[in-house]
Amino acid sequence: MPFTHHVDVRYLEADQQGVVFNMWYLAYLDDAMTGLLAHGGLSYPELMAQGWDVQLVHTELDWTGPLRWGEPAEIDVALARVGTTSFALQFAARVGDRVACTAETVYVAVETEGWTKVPVPESLLAALGPIESLR
Amino acid sequence: MPFTHHVDVRYLEADQQGVVFNMWYLAYLDDAMTGLLAHGGLSYPELMAQGWDVQLVHTELDWTGPLRWGEPAEIDVALARVGTTSFALQFAARVGDRVACTAETVYVAVETEGWTKVPVPESLLAALGPIESLR
Amino acid sequence: MPFTHHVDVRYLEADQQGVVFNMWYLAYLDDAMTGLLAHGGLSYPELMAQGWDVQLVHTELDWTGPLRWGEPAEIDVALARVGTTSFALQFAARVGDRVACTAETVYVAVETEGWTKVPVPESLLAALGPIESLR
Amino acid sequence: MPFTHHVDVRYLEADQQGVVFNMWYLAYLDDAMTGLLAHGGLSYPELMAQGWDVQLVHTELDWTGPLRWGEPAEIDVALARVGTTSFALQFAARVGDRVACTAETVYVAVETEGWTKVPVPESLLAALGPIESLR
Repeated sequence: MPFTHHVDVRYLEADQQGVVFNMWYLAYLDDAMTGLLAHGGLSYPELMAQGWDVQLVHTELDWTGPLRWGEPAEIDVALARVGTTSFALQFAARVGDRVACTAETVYVAVETEGWTKVPVPESLLAALGPIESLR
Repeated sequence: MPFTHHVDVRYLEADQQGVVFNMWYLAYLDDAMTGLLAHGGLSYPELMAQGWDVQLVHTELDWTGPLRWGEPAEIDVALARVGTTSFALQFAARVGDRVACTAETVYVAVETEGWTKVPVPESLLAALGPIESLR
Repeated sequence: MPFTHHVDVRYLEADQQGVVFNMWYLAYLDDAMTGLLAHGGLSYPELMAQGWDVQLVHTELDWTGPLRWGEPAEIDVALARVGTTSFALQFAARVGDRVACTAETVYVAVETEGWTKVPVPESLLAALGPIESLR
Repeated sequence: MPFTHHVDVRYLEADQQGVVFNMWYLAYLDDAMTGLLAHGGLSYPELMAQGWDVQLVHTELDWTGPLRWGEPAEIDVALARVGTTSFALQFAARVGDRVACTAETVYVAVETEGWTKVPVPESLLAALGPIESLR
């Protein structure tokens, strides 16, 4: 069961076409990632207090439909892959079973001192949960 | 002659009513304030390098009409008042002579160490230019 | 008892000073207004379906402290005044008892056809609840 | 020579790490796309007046470094591919020769009536310019 982050779509996020403007999906994904970590027992500030942070290096988004203001949107998020210094999350933004957007992001783990790449910390890996498929 | 900051209204800033959503005006005012300082010979990073910063403590906005995507918008900005540790700027957001919003903001000067109030620094005062009326 | 809208401060809303950038408060107020109406039994889309909308004509904000990412923020909102074609809401954004920002906004009621001012509709007035003081 | 769109990075777009938060790159790409069309002699509102619009169906972004507030950022944009009902643009966001982000987006052409896919209109194709490589 992937973790699901609830999103309250804001009025201001819908554009003249009446649908959520594309950039706000990246705001939702960021919130969902933080939510996943918290759900796994690691708050993002704790991660940083441990001397580590993550940096986004790649994102892919595929839109298959709209999200609209007032819709009860959910963002599913799950771990897709783990490398030595990086990991990938997959996401689906949906209203019920209607998927508006799927996405995948790749993060690298870095030290907060100097921002050099490090192996993905154990505490972070544990919080990300198992590798799962959203579909 | 007040300083005028040009704004390119973004598509995403217009909401379902086809007009710029209210919060983006605060983005425009912030840009215009930075532009006023730069015009006066002081970049905001320089101000901070001198050990000072400003904090927003009050803003008032009055909307009299819309701004729309693609309109050539201008933000007039001028110094309205100077106190001991604070100063006020006034703004008008307009397209040609049609004013969409007038605003006034009050900033206090602070030290970047400890964020305590300080008298408005000379370098900042000089950059803000003379007290002027926008109307 | 005023209505309280919960806000999840987003990572992206905190600026280089580590505090929520001023414009996002207007996003929070807009959310809180919609929440107040829904709490009073009138969804904003319903209001529009009845042929009415509201337009923001004035906002005043006073900041007395910061909001930070991850803080459990609450936005109190209550009806402050009712005029013939307008009404005012007051707001307080706080974390527990620590108030970060107080605000007041004035809206005018308009017809969705032609955007002319109208007396504040009964259904809207009923949803706004009683006039209350936040302090 | 690809078209280059100048971006004034806003103070509010830099996050607690002091770098532009990822979602704002999608704002920059959208601005750059509109700029490319205008440069090619077709304003986006004209396109819509002709009965056509475009919808984003896919975006990929790769970050190789930061953008910071006050940096003179440029967004290069060029046509990458044309299909029957879709076309792809490629982008590079950079400061001088230092590239912060490369991206590719795929749009489909639609009718503004009913939002059904249509062959990419001639007027749009002409405005997009030749297929070019950014690297």
